[in-house]
Amino acid sequence: MDYKFSEKVAGLQASAIREILKFTSQPGVISFAAGNPAPEAFPTEKIADISAEILKNDPVLALQYSVSEGYPPLRELLKKRMQLKNCFNPDIDDLIITSGAQQANELSCKVLCNEGDTLICESPSFIGSLNAFRSYNVNLAGIEMEKDGMKLDLLEEALKKGTGQKLIYVIPNFQNPTGATMSLEKRKGLYQLACKYDAVILEDNPYGDLRFAGEDVPSIKSMDTEGRVIYSGTFSKILAPGLRVGYVSAPKEIIQKIVVCKQVSDVHSTIWSQIVCERFMTECNLDDHFDKLRSIYREKCGLMLDCMDKHFSDKVIYERPEGGLFIWATLPKGSNMTEFCTEAVRDYKIAVVPGTAFMINESDKTDSFRLNFSTPANEQIIKGIEILGNMTKEKFD
Amino acid sequence: MDYKFSEKVAGLQASAIREILKFTSQPGVISFAAGNPAPEAFPTEKIADISAEILKNDPVLALQYSVSEGYPPLRELLKKRMQLKNCFNPDIDDLIITSGAQQANELSCKVLCNEGDTLICESPSFIGSLNAFRSYNVNLAGIEMEKDGMKLDLLEEALKKGTGQKLIYVIPNFQNPTGATMSLEKRKGLYQLACKYDAVILEDNPYGDLRFAGEDVPSIKSMDTEGRVIYSGTFSKILAPGLRVGYVSAPKEIIQKIVVCKQVSDVHSTIWSQIVCERFMTECNLDDHFDKLRSIYREKCGLMLDCMDKHFSDKVIYERPEGGLFIWATLPKGSNMTEFCTEAVRDYKIAVVPGTAFMINESDKTDSFRLNFSTPANEQIIKGIEILGNMTKEKFD
Repeated sequence: MDYKFSEKVAGLQASAIREILKFTSQPGVISFAAGNPAPEAFPTEKIADISAEILKNDPVLALQYSVSEGYPPLRELLKKRMQLKNCFNPDIDDLIITSGAQQANELSCKVLCNEGDTLICESPSFIGSLNAFRSYNVNLAGIEMEKDGMKLDLLEEALKKGTGQKLIYVIPNFQNPTGATMSLEKRKGLYQLACKYDAVILEDNPYGDLRFAGEDVPSIKSMDTEGRVIYSGTFSKILAPGLRVGYVSAPKEIIQKIVVCKQVSDVHSTIWSQIVCERFMTECNLDDHFDKLRSIYREKCGLMLDCMDKHFSDKVIYERPEGGLFIWATLPKGSNMTEFCTEAVRDYKIAVVPGTAFMINESDKTDSFRLNFSTPANEQIIKGIEILGNMTKEKFD
Repeated sequence: MDYKFSEKVAGLQASAIREILKFTSQPGVISFAAGNPAPEAFPTEKIADISAEILKNDPVLALQYSVSEGYPPLRELLKKRMQLKNCFNPDIDDLIITSGAQQANELSCKVLCNEGDTLICESPSFIGSLNAFRSYNVNLAGIEMEKDGMKLDLLEEALKKGTGQKLIYVIPNFQNPTGATMSLEKRKGLYQLACKYDAVILEDNPYGDLRFAGEDVPSIKSMDTEGRVIYSGTFSKILAPGLRVGYVSAPKEIIQKIVVCKQVSDVHSTIWSQIVCERFMTECNLDDHFDKLRSIYREKCGLMLDCMDKHFSDKVIYERPEGGLFIWATLPKGSNMTEFCTEAVRDYKIAVVPGTAFMINESDKTDSFRLNFSTPANEQIIKGIEILGNMTKEKFD
């Protein structure tokens, strides 16, 4: 039979990164294409101990149906932690557990936006979120990025033109894919514009605890006096992504709708995972754990940047991120970036993600590509960046 | 600020059952309101052993990001198992892992239906699926149930009237909430009508392995020569629901769309859970395990029915299910069923689910309520049914 798919999904494609990742499973390929946290950062023994304890003493708790809002002790811990960061206001907010921040972002769009509504995001931005928004057939409006975040004059134009519920999606810390951190001024300006044009902000902060240089910048959520910021976080980068545990802090009315949509999506997140996160937060010194993570990422990012400084053509431009997992490199104007990335993986077995994957419209042009430093081993970084660097020198010097 | 929610979720309410379940946490309440599998059926020690082994030998596999389609060895095992049941045809079908059958059902609706499209279902039906469909603003058309499934003449009328992609949702085995099993004739008739009116069937089979009486009836999927049946299954009732592992077998084109939507929903299901299911299937004798489950459910259902036979007024009607978790009881015509259920929990501390929770429209009337026999302990069944029975005798004899 001929299948008729819904308008919202008819044009939806699997993430372009997935296609590239297929190449990376071939023998000998060095991949800078993933977005995986460093496996050496997983506290595997501690998780095994916690898991054994849970399944010995509380097996039914870990295996039976649970509540959609999430494991209550974990919610309480996160509320307290988020309150200390001014990302949870007990008077107006609620906080629930989601299946990764991905689900928090997807459901925020589902509850707020009708098909055709305007959803404003940074351009480029995280493809997982972009595809989630696309799956609800919203009108994506991409705002050009600068070193310190999106251009606010373009944001204001988009807000003026926007229709329906206006939702602004941003990753203010060590953005995926650019690694850029939004300045305090821009955060304030963004919030003021949201108030002026009655928009809701979706602040996605998966990498916030992975700052290995510079100073923390206050979250947009912490400036929210009008109840217009949804804040999503995750254990994927600080504990382990396979657990699929994230959370969302937002005004109670919004959380109520998100809970109902979560309930119809997966009933609740895997309860074993939630208990593992709760016990880890209770039994371990989180600050020590984060310090360890930050030193791993500082070292890996520093190594990759050192290698890039040494081997890359001067014509290739890149910024030095203060945290997160990614470096964004830009080839000289007019060079064929897609061909460069294809050649890199096909002929030299080095995988990176072409920047087009993160653009809002297929026709948007970019000369940039994304490099991940958290997943590869150090020797892969040293070898792979040298090969990639030689390619840039051959082509552009 | 005033929040504007999307049209699809603006009217969406949390499951009515959840409100009843709040009463059940009060001390002394005997609950027949849940839909939980029997905790004594969980193979907790085996799961603990498997988990320890995974986290010792393959911690990164269990904790790192994984593929959206699901853990490949689990998919292969399920494909083989489903193929033996004629629920997977390798020439036309694909099979992926979902976060419970709930996600399989939700995403089937998302990929196939636009807002306003007709979705036909049994009336009454499983509230979790109904709410999932409501969250996409489809037009639900409920078809009256008989002992052997929905009335096919009414189904044909609904198909004639239906607009857009017509999707028919059914739970053919031990339906939730009625416990009814669709006869072979009706399955064939349903499939023929789907072909005639170019509809897609979503066959939800969460309880199929929990048959404790009578003979298996071939699945609708096994009759599918045109690629119009989506089949969803789950480990929730045969292993443990807290794991959140389900699966969906459907024509490849449909699965491709579901995978993309799953990716934007939660990236992938918790990988630890998926490995637990795979190892359990590999290391344990599934038939022995199912025999054990069936004897637990046979005993509990039989005990509840015996108690009902003994204590209930003859004016209350109920069928004897051949499997699953539920018994559907119907009060005499014109009695106030909602008041009966409210009084039962408020004055006698016995919780059941009023049938209205499962109706398609709020205004649909029913004299029935749902009893669950899998979750309560045997002594609770004996005591609770006697109290409920005395209530029925007082009111109706």
